[in-house]
Amino acid sequence: MKIIIDAMGGDNAPHEIVKGAVDGLKSCKAEVVLVGRQDVIEQELAKYPDHDKSRITVVNATEVIDNNESPVFALRRKKDSSIVKALALVKGNDDAALISAGSTGALFAGGLLLCGRLKGIDRPALATTLPAKKGPTLLLDSGANVDSDVEHLVGFAVLGKAYMKTVFGIEDPTIGLINNGAEEKKGNNLTKAAHQALKNDPNLNFVGNVEPRYSYDNQADVLVCDGFAGNAILKTSEGIGMYIMGSLKDEIKSSKLAMLGALFMKKALKSLKNRFNYDYYGGAPLLGVDANIIKIHGSSKSSAVVYAMIQADKMMEGKVLSAIKQNVNEMAPQAEADQ
Amino acid sequence: MKIIIDAMGGDNAPHEIVKGAVDGLKSCKAEVVLVGRQDVIEQELAKYPDHDKSRITVVNATEVIDNNESPVFALRRKKDSSIVKALALVKGNDDAALISAGSTGALFAGGLLLCGRLKGIDRPALATTLPAKKGPTLLLDSGANVDSDVEHLVGFAVLGKAYMKTVFGIEDPTIGLINNGAEEKKGNNLTKAAHQALKNDPNLNFVGNVEPRYSYDNQADVLVCDGFAGNAILKTSEGIGMYIMGSLKDEIKSSKLAMLGALFMKKALKSLKNRFNYDYYGGAPLLGVDANIIKIHGSSKSSAVVYAMIQADKMMEGKVLSAIKQNVNEMAPQAEADQ
Repeated sequence: MKIIIDAMGGDNAPHEIVKGAVDGLKSCKAEVVLVGRQDVIEQELAKYPDHDKSRITVVNATEVIDNNESPVFALRRKKDSSIVKALALVKGNDDAALISAGSTGALFAGGLLLCGRLKGIDRPALATTLPAKKGPTLLLDSGANVDSDVEHLVGFAVLGKAYMKTVFGIEDPTIGLINNGAEEKKGNNLTKAAHQALKNDPNLNFVGNVEPRYSYDNQADVLVCDGFAGNAILKTSEGIGMYIMGSLKDEIKSSKLAMLGALFMKKALKSLKNRFNYDYYGGAPLLGVDANIIKIHGSSKSSAVVYAMIQADKMMEGKVLSAIKQNVNEMAPQAEADQ
Repeated sequence: MKIIIDAMGGDNAPHEIVKGAVDGLKSCKAEVVLVGRQDVIEQELAKYPDHDKSRITVVNATEVIDNNESPVFALRRKKDSSIVKALALVKGNDDAALISAGSTGALFAGGLLLCGRLKGIDRPALATTLPAKKGPTLLLDSGANVDSDVEHLVGFAVLGKAYMKTVFGIEDPTIGLINNGAEEKKGNNLTKAAHQALKNDPNLNFVGNVEPRYSYDNQADVLVCDGFAGNAILKTSEGIGMYIMGSLKDEIKSSKLAMLGALFMKKALKSLKNRFNYDYYGGAPLLGVDANIIKIHGSSKSSAVVYAMIQADKMMEGKVLSAIKQNVNEMAPQAEADQ
């Protein structure tokens, strides 16, 4: 098993990415392949003389695709970019997984163009695991498809089901549809039609609409929505979380008594912070392409890399890619026949 | 000036609504008219023998429209409902404002059917004031129009500008477009087109796209989006806020030391809670209809009624309705000519 890491992607690359790769060796079984500028990566690796050198190799890639480039154009032009080289290593391979903190657009376009879609799936989706109250909830699409139609949403449900079953061992994952009201007749044009399609699919354990207010209430194991709404839910959550924690800090700092209180509450506050650590369940897998691809936050630090490595290990051990292919084939015979 | 209160609407009606009306008398100048079942309201009022009876009157209405009814049908059939009678009292009136915790659908449909749209505005919008970091930010539409087009979004900007100018005294309110990316070329079909329309409108102080993560960062005074996304942002905020505060409570309860710490932090924690009190800026005005209508949360307690009364006072004193009409006329001559 090999974890391929895009060493050049993200705001804190290569330092935090390489540090994470080294730290993560202790928590996972796979070997690690760092892709990027060899000289730069080796300089970083030299900072950790005690790491297990037998399990880390470097693949040289001289170019980098940044956020401001047109992904499709850049993928064609920059053949020696870390992302192009990394994708070649994971294509169609159950025993390899790519982790990247680089441009979402390039990763999405690259996954599609260089690895290919799975048969029966119209649109790959980014899936984010929310740290919900009683355990993980998968939200997809969380930002890759900002214009989605009914068939896409059903496809997201199929992918989400297969992922939750394989990675978290949930026998028959429940599916919820993100909507502005719980009632069946509520919604916009998309969700009203999607509700019926999900309800009528005999392969899906559909439990109905879920209001964004209850995204973290485990009303369903998988929450499907278009990428615009998914992005809004995810990013609002992160923004408000930071706002509340920041305000709590301000309030504590504003009084000596409160500062003393916070000292007594140190463990409780730390535990609270950990509870809302989105990195804990790993990064966002790009489901529906013929490769194990995990997108981590552009601002990822080394710990996010480590969590994603644990997730990659699990995905490979569970043969997620094959399992998803099998599930999709079983569940979407019509769509497959249409190809 | 008269504040008309739907005494029968909401989960805690009539008790909390009538209590709020009585409490609110001290904080506002207007007279109060309670609309609903006279016997029930008078029973509630009798609980507060010391209230200023000269400033509260009751208008009898024997019927109630509930959340499960088709709004349009119910409005036509239930002529003696509190909402129908209340809307008649505020129609086209700068010196009257309606507060209701009842069904959003009935209020929206009633506002449209019984009070009428403002000339030049295609779709009225619910506007919610977010307790952002450095002061109020208006988010609209926050749930009334779940399918919106480009013209609707521009209309929301016009309405939001007029409201922020009149109620919060902001000279030339800045307008932001909620989007999944800050870059101009990013977005779904709706936001990409809306970006251009907002940018090209010489009457709008458009500052570009605002990502949901920064909804509370005062990047713009007015944030426009379709009602589905607006609902997602608002409800996710509320849900996550409750989740974090609930988790903090759990963490505190889990250790004696933390409980002691929390005692020292009592004031800071209370201040934190107040900072995220969505009721503080009042309810959500339904902008774009020919009446002052304020929707408060279905679960509103008396304090939410008081805050909405203060807001209603401000709206009447500032002649918001006339001001919005004037602003809309100045800004949308083309739309008006099209009517």
